[in-house]
Amino acid sequence: MYRTHYNGELRANNEKEKVKLVGWVSKKRNFGQLCFIDLRDTTGITQLVFDEAIAPKVKDVRNEYILQVSGTVEKRKDINPTLPTGEIEVIVDDVKIINTAKTTPLIIADETDALEDTRMEYRYLDLRRPIMQSRLKTRAKISRSMRDYLDHHGFLEVETPMLGKSTPEGARDYLVPSRVHPGSFYALPQSPQLYKQLLMIAGLDKYYQFARCFRDEDLRADRQTDFTQVDIETSFLSEQEIMDFTEEMLCKVMKEVKGIEVKRPFLKITWEDAMNRYGSDKPDNRFGMEFVDLGPMFAKSEFPVFQNVETLKGFVAPAFHASNKEVKKLTEFVKKNGGKGLVVFKMQEGTLSGPARKFLSDEDEKALIETMGANDGDTIFIVADTWRKACTALGALRNEIASQKGLKKPNEFSFLWIVDFPMFEWSEEEGRYVSEHHPFTMPKTEDLPLLDTDPSKVKTNAYDIILNGYELGGGSMRIYDNALQKKIFQILGLSDEDIQNKFGFFVDAFQYGTPPHGGLALGFDRVAMLLAETDSIRDVIAFPKNASAKDPMSKAPCPVDEKQLDELHIQIEHD
Amino acid sequence: MYRTHYNGELRANNEKEKVKLVGWVSKKRNFGQLCFIDLRDTTGITQLVFDEAIAPKVKDVRNEYILQVSGTVEKRKDINPTLPTGEIEVIVDDVKIINTAKTTPLIIADETDALEDTRMEYRYLDLRRPIMQSRLKTRAKISRSMRDYLDHHGFLEVETPMLGKSTPEGARDYLVPSRVHPGSFYALPQSPQLYKQLLMIAGLDKYYQFARCFRDEDLRADRQTDFTQVDIETSFLSEQEIMDFTEEMLCKVMKEVKGIEVKRPFLKITWEDAMNRYGSDKPDNRFGMEFVDLGPMFAKSEFPVFQNVETLKGFVAPAFHASNKEVKKLTEFVKKNGGKGLVVFKMQEGTLSGPARKFLSDEDEKALIETMGANDGDTIFIVADTWRKACTALGALRNEIASQKGLKKPNEFSFLWIVDFPMFEWSEEEGRYVSEHHPFTMPKTEDLPLLDTDPSKVKTNAYDIILNGYELGGGSMRIYDNALQKKIFQILGLSDEDIQNKFGFFVDAFQYGTPPHGGLALGFDRVAMLLAETDSIRDVIAFPKNASAKDPMSKAPCPVDEKQLDELHIQIEHD
Repeated sequence: MYRTHYNGELRANNEKEKVKLVGWVSKKRNFGQLCFIDLRDTTGITQLVFDEAIAPKVKDVRNEYILQVSGTVEKRKDINPTLPTGEIEVIVDDVKIINTAKTTPLIIADETDALEDTRMEYRYLDLRRPIMQSRLKTRAKISRSMRDYLDHHGFLEVETPMLGKSTPEGARDYLVPSRVHPGSFYALPQSPQLYKQLLMIAGLDKYYQFARCFRDEDLRADRQTDFTQVDIETSFLSEQEIMDFTEEMLCKVMKEVKGIEVKRPFLKITWEDAMNRYGSDKPDNRFGMEFVDLGPMFAKSEFPVFQNVETLKGFVAPAFHASNKEVKKLTEFVKKNGGKGLVVFKMQEGTLSGPARKFLSDEDEKALIETMGANDGDTIFIVADTWRKACTALGALRNEIASQKGLKKPNEFSFLWIVDFPMFEWSEEEGRYVSEHHPFTMPKTEDLPLLDTDPSKVKTNAYDIILNGYELGGGSMRIYDNALQKKIFQILGLSDEDIQNKFGFFVDAFQYGTPPHGGLALGFDRVAMLLAETDSIRDVIAFPKNASAKDPMSKAPCPVDEKQLDELHIQIEHD
Repeated sequence: MYRTHYNGELRANNEKEKVKLVGWVSKKRNFGQLCFIDLRDTTGITQLVFDEAIAPKVKDVRNEYILQVSGTVEKRKDINPTLPTGEIEVIVDDVKIINTAKTTPLIIADETDALEDTRMEYRYLDLRRPIMQSRLKTRAKISRSMRDYLDHHGFLEVETPMLGKSTPEGARDYLVPSRVHPGSFYALPQSPQLYKQLLMIAGLDKYYQFARCFRDEDLRADRQTDFTQVDIETSFLSEQEIMDFTEEMLCKVMKEVKGIEVKRPFLKITWEDAMNRYGSDKPDNRFGMEFVDLGPMFAKSEFPVFQNVETLKGFVAPAFHASNKEVKKLTEFVKKNGGKGLVVFKMQEGTLSGPARKFLSDEDEKALIETMGANDGDTIFIVADTWRKACTALGALRNEIASQKGLKKPNEFSFLWIVDFPMFEWSEEEGRYVSEHHPFTMPKTEDLPLLDTDPSKVKTNAYDIILNGYELGGGSMRIYDNALQKKIFQILGLSDEDIQNKFGFFVDAFQYGTPPHGGLALGFDRVAMLLAETDSIRDVIAFPKNASAKDPMSKAPCPVDEKQLDELHIQIEHD
């Protein structure tokens, strides 16, 4: 046996025990003839004391060497209250160097100034940092807690295929050339959507899977080449029942992992309301700054910017002062987010100032202050544009201000649902309707006639679950009638041949007794990121890719042997 | 609410309760004015009774229609003891047809004569068969039981990358072209081997993962394009400690999933012994037919086949009679499995017969009968060849005979360990040594000097776990010294440049304080197959590929759009 205890285990009540420990040298210091070493493993640190007789044996030992020691637990004179083992130390009577270590290219400590690419190149050292291990442990704890819930509520875990069919409807597929079928390709799954619905058709009633999914899109802080999705589907449950068990599961996770009691039911906001009030379909409602509709108030305004606009709305940033230079930056920010411009008023001593002030009558000013509820020291932001653009631009600005003001506290959690999504969004780029969720979403029964007259007005039985301004996941009730499913595909611009080629097997399956079904999927990396209180999913993924989809450690992706390509019947196309 | 109960739930003590049920019509029969319907869901079947008042409402209902009914539970007059709900029936007072169904192309029943390709094309119907659902449930139960064990014993679940680096050392990689890095490719993981070892270097101590792994090899009954591996790695544990917790976990699974108490410790057989006695490195020891070494006995035999052979061994098939035609077939079988030929003696009335009898003296005959312990009605099989070929061919024959005699009972379970594997096997084909396990396996300390003199004699600290003649999994202690690791790569014929290109990041990692570590991986699909008492892993995979790596349901793999290939900088090479 290499050890009797882990390094995070010993306490004062272990005094006088003979113990055997093994671990990494985290710190070493000499005091005269004595030598002190902090020995680290994944559970914590124990202070080792080497007296003059044995200290010479560790003379050449340096950080990250692996030592095995035996010794006796003693109470410390100087207790270290920051350390769980801070009451004791181990007086070493024997030591063995298990392995040596070169100087590490990054310091093994929670705080690091190492560049992210260095951290990723030496990920095995980055993961030695206790904070990183704690994040991976949080992730595993969440998974455990969710699985417990799902297993105990009769959900059956089923693994679905990793090598599937390319259906370029959603994001871009990762393709895998087939060796056996020249010229054919598998696609890595973007989600198990079709499979989980087929499992419902198979009668499996309640399904879940922690599914690895793939989207070949450009990466950002909360997106990787592949991600893990907690995928859930049920038959014969209503939208409300699905939302209920999801809340129940998330509350259990919050309690078990964070020790926090979250109140139920979660707030439910319609998509339209969320856009109107927060300018986002994933609003962060931990801070106010809700939007006020100023259209009616300025209906007869002489300010050209306010004239003849579809939507005029704004919000107050309390106790927020922006210099002219900062206002310029914020205006640029609004434009980058699709807004035409930004009107800014600062409030001091009961009056407003700003370049647009001159367009306001004194009554306008008074009404604006009152309607917005502004106080001295506040700043008012107003955007005039089409409805979607005004909402979206102002929503981005609201988020930006909240970040600048430090209002997004990682240890405060606010869950909410967004419901009543539109079924379609018109894509100017593609000149056709695209799905707001996905084409399998059930339209609201009362909106079915609109499919023939004005698809843009059709709302769905879809629901997104939001935490702190992040979309944790979403789901919907599914279509279970193949005539309706075909109609949706047609509105999305798919020809009958397309439908048959891409989804034929799926719509055919609907004919053999399909139950009413629905479900959802949670972005597991995001859940882990938020509960680990960090702002990058790379912090909760053991070996992530960098922003250019590369692994700086293994250097993947890499060129391969010509022979491998030959076997796969492909060649590289040089531009 | 769609239902108050599932269809497998109601018992006699529910008598007189008003219930609501929903499910698929499994059987429908009319008795005069009455109509009986068996309603099915994933939990079982309830018999519904429609009296003359309500029967007309289900006049057009056929199998696999989905019905929702409300009614009253009554005790049956004729109890059906084969059904858990056989004591009751539900007298229906209201019925709603939730969905209709076309006639299914396969019958929804445990017994099926549908072709496997039909079953796979309509997998969602195949999975409606209760036996298939029961297999998927067994699979999920095993996973749950293993996770419980691992979580409770301090193993941390960590997900490793799906898009990694191609290291064409083992099997053939599935490749994924990179869009961002033209001409570069990711590889889907053959196993998380390097990553799990890096997690040990990172100090994570005990790791597990249910990992999806990929090998682009030709398929067979126990092999798919991708498979699920229960991947485990630990630091600071001995080989024996790793074997101990594996046994403990498997015993827990056997108890929880099969209700069977398996005795510990499992039998441990050296590789050499297994080859000598069973001609296999994954012997099925549920039936005898162990080999007897006949070399000494026939050292001076005049039978040319027995002369000057490295190995002469045989076994007795008790109470086994093969016609001359069958003997011919078995001889062909031995040849197909690498043996030169087969000598067969049948025993009747205390004497042996067979074409080779004439080469035996009467003393030889007597000695052979005695040594082999043969009885009247038995057949003796003997093979003469080099050691490996004689063992392997005879091992295949032993398995074949056991199958023919029905000795492989799916509900009898025998676990054992194979240990002391050779490190290398000489590959005639490649003209170099190849790894018997993989190149990261730790050679036995006492054999280290043999690396320089006779690598073929080096044994390793590797261990395979066998169940009923299947390799459930295997593992080893790993090398944790980069000089030794490099030496092994060199013996395998890798140049320094190869090592640096393919494994550079990995051997470099060894320099920063690598702990002694080891682990194993279990083939989860095989575990599920054996515990589900079936002989094809396709029976425990929801949506498997067929023998040509195709999914008859979705038709994957498929041709893709030219545009997709352009984005990936590849084109199809037409031969």
